[in-house]
Amino acid sequence: MISKLIKGIKEKNAPIVVGLDPQLGFLPEDILARAYDEKGRTLEAVADAVFEFNKGIVDATYDLIPAVKPQIAMYEQFGIPGLMAYKQTVDYCKSKGLVVIGDIKRGDIGSTSEAYAIGHIGSVDLGGEKVYPFDEDIVTVNPYLGSDGVKPFIKVCNENDRGIFVLVKTSNPSSGEFQDRVVDGRPLYELVGEMVNSWGLDSMDGEYSNVGAVVGATYPEMGKILRDIMPKAYILVPGYGAQGGKGKDLVHFFNSDGLGAIVNSSRGIIAAYKQEKYAGMDYKDAARAAVVDMIEDISSALQ
Amino acid sequence: MISKLIKGIKEKNAPIVVGLDPQLGFLPEDILARAYDEKGRTLEAVADAVFEFNKGIVDATYDLIPAVKPQIAMYEQFGIPGLMAYKQTVDYCKSKGLVVIGDIKRGDIGSTSEAYAIGHIGSVDLGGEKVYPFDEDIVTVNPYLGSDGVKPFIKVCNENDRGIFVLVKTSNPSSGEFQDRVVDGRPLYELVGEMVNSWGLDSMDGEYSNVGAVVGATYPEMGKILRDIMPKAYILVPGYGAQGGKGKDLVHFFNSDGLGAIVNSSRGIIAAYKQEKYAGMDYKDAARAAVVDMIEDISSALQ
Repeated sequence: MISKLIKGIKEKNAPIVVGLDPQLGFLPEDILARAYDEKGRTLEAVADAVFEFNKGIVDATYDLIPAVKPQIAMYEQFGIPGLMAYKQTVDYCKSKGLVVIGDIKRGDIGSTSEAYAIGHIGSVDLGGEKVYPFDEDIVTVNPYLGSDGVKPFIKVCNENDRGIFVLVKTSNPSSGEFQDRVVDGRPLYELVGEMVNSWGLDSMDGEYSNVGAVVGATYPEMGKILRDIMPKAYILVPGYGAQGGKGKDLVHFFNSDGLGAIVNSSRGIIAAYKQEKYAGMDYKDAARAAVVDMIEDISSALQ
Repeated sequence: MISKLIKGIKEKNAPIVVGLDPQLGFLPEDILARAYDEKGRTLEAVADAVFEFNKGIVDATYDLIPAVKPQIAMYEQFGIPGLMAYKQTVDYCKSKGLVVIGDIKRGDIGSTSEAYAIGHIGSVDLGGEKVYPFDEDIVTVNPYLGSDGVKPFIKVCNENDRGIFVLVKTSNPSSGEFQDRVVDGRPLYELVGEMVNSWGLDSMDGEYSNVGAVVGATYPEMGKILRDIMPKAYILVPGYGAQGGKGKDLVHFFNSDGLGAIVNSSRGIIAAYKQEKYAGMDYKDAARAAVVDMIEDISSALQ
């Protein structure tokens, strides 16, 4: 799967991913009002509005980007109808040729992680009938439970040509509380990075592995170290834009081949119409303009 | 919420929780066959079978137990229909007076954790209309992202009288890979335990906190240490039975008041009919017998 993502990055010349994280506050009022008119103040109405909003973003940007990253929490907060909008979003993005990274951050004991893997990037066997329940291309995984929480995902990756990004150093302010604690003279995130590299050798797909890592744009110095520790891992970099990461911070996440990282922006794109810079633009046009600006920012930083 | 759980534990004299983790292999063949006959080899059929199976277990045991713990992965593996069966299970168990612990192990950056918290133990505000999407009583939370991934859950707990159990030391064989790493002379899980204790002070509910911890029955010595580090935290103890934990291993998880811990068994109860000990029994009768045996095993160990 990682080779498919790399192909898209090269074709679009854009190592970026748009985060489809539709918080209620990001939705233009008319979309929400129309949905409430039709279905009342219900989760079903919100789910309709969320999908309509996403479809607008995707239609306005899909030709510029290789991938999207829907954050499942933003759908799960609206219960079953929200998750139906998540699934609709996954399917719609795939129909537009985009690689879909489900930001699910699941992780559990072995048999339970296997169930998550099956549900999201694998298939269930219903007495001979194979069904792919959520069918994302790649998902994010939480490593706190160790190898036997991660390996079931890798097994399912190998069976279905899918990928995972394992949380190594997250973008949030308190990520250091546990992740930076020093173990045998090195921070824990380095240890997790080493494990990611070693797990990844079992799922190579060309020059890179289907087992990648999440490292926040907000910690560029750590990104530099982790880049060296995990040479075969693609790095998914959240935290660009709204969380404070800038283009120049990103260079260390890339390898010398210009590959090795893909940078996410969520509200910086999908809620761009709320920024002064894009004032007066429709949310779709603003999203497209913000994608163009983001590609330009990262490209010039990489040169 | 923890006081409600404690009340149930005292009334039933049973510090146990039944894990509703309906793997396909646990379902009696006739339940699955009937569902396939009705709805074909579909996720909808499996979801129907799962709920019927759960209902049988709950009807056979609810008068003996204070709480259930559905593992959401076992439903999520069946996509949207599976999650509908999860929600049906949550609602049915609540209608029988049980405390429902959603084993969801979510955890993310602040705004995203808040979305999970709202979806599972809180409410969304749909322009003045308050809706509770999943509406569990308590959920499990993964601490890898630190305080700002956990605190949004506590905020929502306080607003809605709910609870969380934070993963501290998990029951699986590889849990030590990261959790046991020595930081400042002590294993990481102790550090997480200290944080749980400190987070919990913001959500006291009687003698105990709404912020509890998950510590595996498979690590009784660590349970003893963590019991001291987190005096106000209820400990949810998985790993009893099928994973190898025994009644005598559990004493250290309890405080001297006989409270402070609740022990989970999943397949040991719901798939008891597959054990030699309960051979020939209907799955519901076997589940009830296994609950009685588990209560007896733990009670005699605690005496």
